[in-house]
Amino acid sequence: MKILFSPFSPYVRKCLVAAHELGLNDKLQLLPSNAHPVNRDQEIIRDNPLGKVPTFHSDDGQVLYDSRVICEYLNDLARGSLFPASGTARWQALTLQALGDGMLDAALLARYEDVARPEALRWPEWRAAQLDKAETALAHLDARPALLAQRVDIGAITVGCALWYLDLRFADFGWRDRHPQVAQWYATFGQRPSMRAQWAL
Amino acid sequence: MKILFSPFSPYVRKCLVAAHELGLNDKLQLLPSNAHPVNRDQEIIRDNPLGKVPTFHSDDGQVLYDSRVICEYLNDLARGSLFPASGTARWQALTLQALGDGMLDAALLARYEDVARPEALRWPEWRAAQLDKAETALAHLDARPALLAQRVDIGAITVGCALWYLDLRFADFGWRDRHPQVAQWYATFGQRPSMRAQWAL
Repeated sequence: MKILFSPFSPYVRKCLVAAHELGLNDKLQLLPSNAHPVNRDQEIIRDNPLGKVPTFHSDDGQVLYDSRVICEYLNDLARGSLFPASGTARWQALTLQALGDGMLDAALLARYEDVARPEALRWPEWRAAQLDKAETALAHLDARPALLAQRVDIGAITVGCALWYLDLRFADFGWRDRHPQVAQWYATFGQRPSMRAQWAL
Repeated sequence: MKILFSPFSPYVRKCLVAAHELGLNDKLQLLPSNAHPVNRDQEIIRDNPLGKVPTFHSDDGQVLYDSRVICEYLNDLARGSLFPASGTARWQALTLQALGDGMLDAALLARYEDVARPEALRWPEWRAAQLDKAETALAHLDARPALLAQRVDIGAITVGCALWYLDLRFADFGWRDRHPQVAQWYATFGQRPSMRAQWAL
């Protein structure tokens, strides 16, 4: 199995953390890529016309994307429990994944505003509104600590990767002071071997 | 069941088309919302901290988002066939859904650039790169007409809603001339009662 890799893509990391939790880490070959929101990588486009990572090649020749599809495929392959099969547990895990992905979508847009867009064209209100999505998501989680407690599934992994990305790119965002319950959860969850693992080409 | 509604949200429309295909259309109550990428709707945030639509309330009190989760829930409720249960058919349908969602994400960013961002801060290269994602996605589909042929599932519905949104917001994008196979498919698929239905509060 192969995955188009970028060291600072939180969506790639989400797939790698899931693979690690599923015991598939050693079976996943990392391929180089140069994804960029404006200067589009034509090599990625050959596999995935959206030109985004992660893009995944299964051993039986399927090309899969995006991170949600790749993670569910890996879970299925390993007969894992990152995706509850049915019922309320499934919808809750998938909605928590959507919350984490939404935090990441917003954080990436704020990041593009900071570094990709020419300085004269930046719009502070847009950047602030994107980071406010992460803020209201964190407030939601902080008020409901049971949502994250005790779970190691695609929801927790996605939220964990969103916090990893906030720490990586917005170190002065200071979310721990405002959301101590989430901070306490992440202090433990973030120490899992899958979350501490380092990947490089 | 209730869904936060916005008449021009392609993701809301995707859920409503899926509900229509599943025979659930009459059971879904539409609730008003004022989603906006910068001026965030605090009422939506009470249900969904990302402040986005669609957001869905099930009859047993679950709050679900985003469109992928809602559509799969509806399919499960109706014991439908919009999501193949397993195997290659499932991964292909989910990847096609991801392709359609990626076209929509890009088209929405181009739209925000056109109408939400102050004129002096617009970046033409960003807008062009977003629309180029839709373009390369269409080229991918046009070269592989079997991907869309004969299917009525979450992949086809999502691509259909992406084409609906391109026609709605980018009428001069002119994709039909460059992608005649996709145009031929949509000329039929777009006439399904679910795709022609109109929704309003």
